[in-house]
Amino acid sequence: MSNKSAGLAGVVAGQSAIATVGTGQGLNYRGYSIDDLAMHASFEEVAYLLIYNKLPTRAELTAYIAKLVSLRTLPSELKSVLRLIPPTTHPMDILRTGCSMLGTLEPELDFTQQFAIADRLLAILPGMLCYWYLYNFADKEISGLSDEATIAGHFLALLHSRKPDKLQRDMLDVSLILYAEHEFNASTFAARVTAATLSDFYSAITSAIGTLRGPLHGGANEAAMELIAACITPDDAEREVMQRLAMKNKIMGFGHRVYKTCDPRSNIIKAWSKKLGVAQSAESLYTISERIEAVMWREKKLFPNLDFYSASAYHYCGIPTALFTPIFVMSRVTGWAAHVIEQRADNRLIRPDAEYIGPDPRKYVAIDNR
Amino acid sequence: MSNKSAGLAGVVAGQSAIATVGTGQGLNYRGYSIDDLAMHASFEEVAYLLIYNKLPTRAELTAYIAKLVSLRTLPSELKSVLRLIPPTTHPMDILRTGCSMLGTLEPELDFTQQFAIADRLLAILPGMLCYWYLYNFADKEISGLSDEATIAGHFLALLHSRKPDKLQRDMLDVSLILYAEHEFNASTFAARVTAATLSDFYSAITSAIGTLRGPLHGGANEAAMELIAACITPDDAEREVMQRLAMKNKIMGFGHRVYKTCDPRSNIIKAWSKKLGVAQSAESLYTISERIEAVMWREKKLFPNLDFYSASAYHYCGIPTALFTPIFVMSRVTGWAAHVIEQRADNRLIRPDAEYIGPDPRKYVAIDNR
Repeated sequence: MSNKSAGLAGVVAGQSAIATVGTGQGLNYRGYSIDDLAMHASFEEVAYLLIYNKLPTRAELTAYIAKLVSLRTLPSELKSVLRLIPPTTHPMDILRTGCSMLGTLEPELDFTQQFAIADRLLAILPGMLCYWYLYNFADKEISGLSDEATIAGHFLALLHSRKPDKLQRDMLDVSLILYAEHEFNASTFAARVTAATLSDFYSAITSAIGTLRGPLHGGANEAAMELIAACITPDDAEREVMQRLAMKNKIMGFGHRVYKTCDPRSNIIKAWSKKLGVAQSAESLYTISERIEAVMWREKKLFPNLDFYSASAYHYCGIPTALFTPIFVMSRVTGWAAHVIEQRADNRLIRPDAEYIGPDPRKYVAIDNR
Repeated sequence: MSNKSAGLAGVVAGQSAIATVGTGQGLNYRGYSIDDLAMHASFEEVAYLLIYNKLPTRAELTAYIAKLVSLRTLPSELKSVLRLIPPTTHPMDILRTGCSMLGTLEPELDFTQQFAIADRLLAILPGMLCYWYLYNFADKEISGLSDEATIAGHFLALLHSRKPDKLQRDMLDVSLILYAEHEFNASTFAARVTAATLSDFYSAITSAIGTLRGPLHGGANEAAMELIAACITPDDAEREVMQRLAMKNKIMGFGHRVYKTCDPRSNIIKAWSKKLGVAQSAESLYTISERIEAVMWREKKLFPNLDFYSASAYHYCGIPTALFTPIFVMSRVTGWAAHVIEQRADNRLIRPDAEYIGPDPRKYVAIDNR
């Protein structure tokens, strides 16, 4: 092989029954199209579908939401750890460390606990993040609880210490659906590599969080926001993008390893970004984004991926840019959980080979003769 | 593909210049045979070879050891976190959480810091582990510092609160060399998957620790010890193994995904196990191990891997079984570091495909019609 085929691009690393990505069927979660789910389902319904492998009935969904609400409490030792993490920390490191710490407080002693742990993580992540964030940036210790039933509403209520705006909550709910699952993306694959040694659930999710943290993966929506925020008008944006392209800088939020013509999630979040811009009479962020999209297509034939319009949509909700990737975690934890459960059900250690390109065998030279 | 070819067995996932495993050249680290290194080098020399890609001169090694000694200090916030982790915790979770926490206290802001962070982790892990262990099981708060120059001596000095026995220290030094690096094993591969999103160094090492934790990977030496400790005599051991085989139980510490006829590291650690047994006039653990080896070969044609004789060798040093896999971390962190550095030098996102075996596209049914 040449190293051009590195990165396992196009290499099948296993079987999965969870999502279709780039198979020509569009993006489906367990057979249901992302368009239908984003239009008709709630994020909790999708979480249930991914983790429990069926769409819930009304009674099941009501019970599931109540269960998730009951699992929000932050253990006091976890809060102590969160208070010890400096305010300068990348918020993804909060979730990575918090998830790992929770694994010491509520360990998985038996794989039969895996569904309970998946639900616990899904329920606790917004509180974990907002506790640390508000402790450091609003000088208050929150309980981590709220009156909001949904995860989208709960997160916004904690972050802003008020009842969330309905439109913002609905957008975030859709965004969580769109980010929930995406086959063998890098963070999910990391979770499966970890799970395949039969390690515990928390280790797998911790690996996934640390992997999602990278700018080539989850960090893209933050980088997209940085570009958009640097522009005042669409013409500004055009100049800025042209300049960055001339300097061969990578513009984040465009193109995709698997998708070649478009990201089926992009138009959905784009419509929500526009809706929020109009509702807030603050469309410039949206029109700037649209211009960037047009320039990227004209110049590079690259289409926006989910991350690009998520940036403006989140910004319209008053969400600090540093929390964009952690929101991705709050959502994708459902897909990660589904993959860990699937990996365990038919496990094989994931251990590829390397092509050796190092020195030939050589004689050891005693240290004083070097 | 059939799922039998899952796990990427035999699939080349990238290039590497670090180790040869199963290429017919024996196990070499950067071209130097493991036999030569185990016989002539110190672990710090091997760490330097792996991380800095050359064997150090005498002056370089002296400076490197002094540097590692200077990097042992445990930050007070880290000690606070370690005290918050319950005594019932799996010690691998200490290192996973401690590494993640350290990443918040001393973050990698720039990849030029990667060598400094590799050295810092290598230096601090024994103190991190022993601080938590002795706080919980000896009721004392240690400083995490010692007068021992080497990592092997430092760990034993901290663990036992006394100057280590020379033979034990020498064995552990060799063991650290043997465990230091092994190409694309699961934990190293997890580190590379994480690093390939251009995430930070701590995220990659945290993923690796969580992956090594699994019983199909690092946990094997602990499982081997459990079997050995359950036997009083070699005949006992023979009965026990036959019984477990009859019940189709997996005997840990035997066979290997890549090696098909022997593990080149096994005889080296076996000789050290025998040496310690003889020196302590306590050979039964060794003779029990030998009998298990003979039975496994006779019955299953399986050879012992590095983990098997490491178990008795560590036990001879008075190391609690629960700390066996964490010692693996103290050593393998050098190989992980080398792989993260190598991955970054010619990076490509690691993102394989899945073979979809789930349901065909299906119509979303409104919740009240389910």
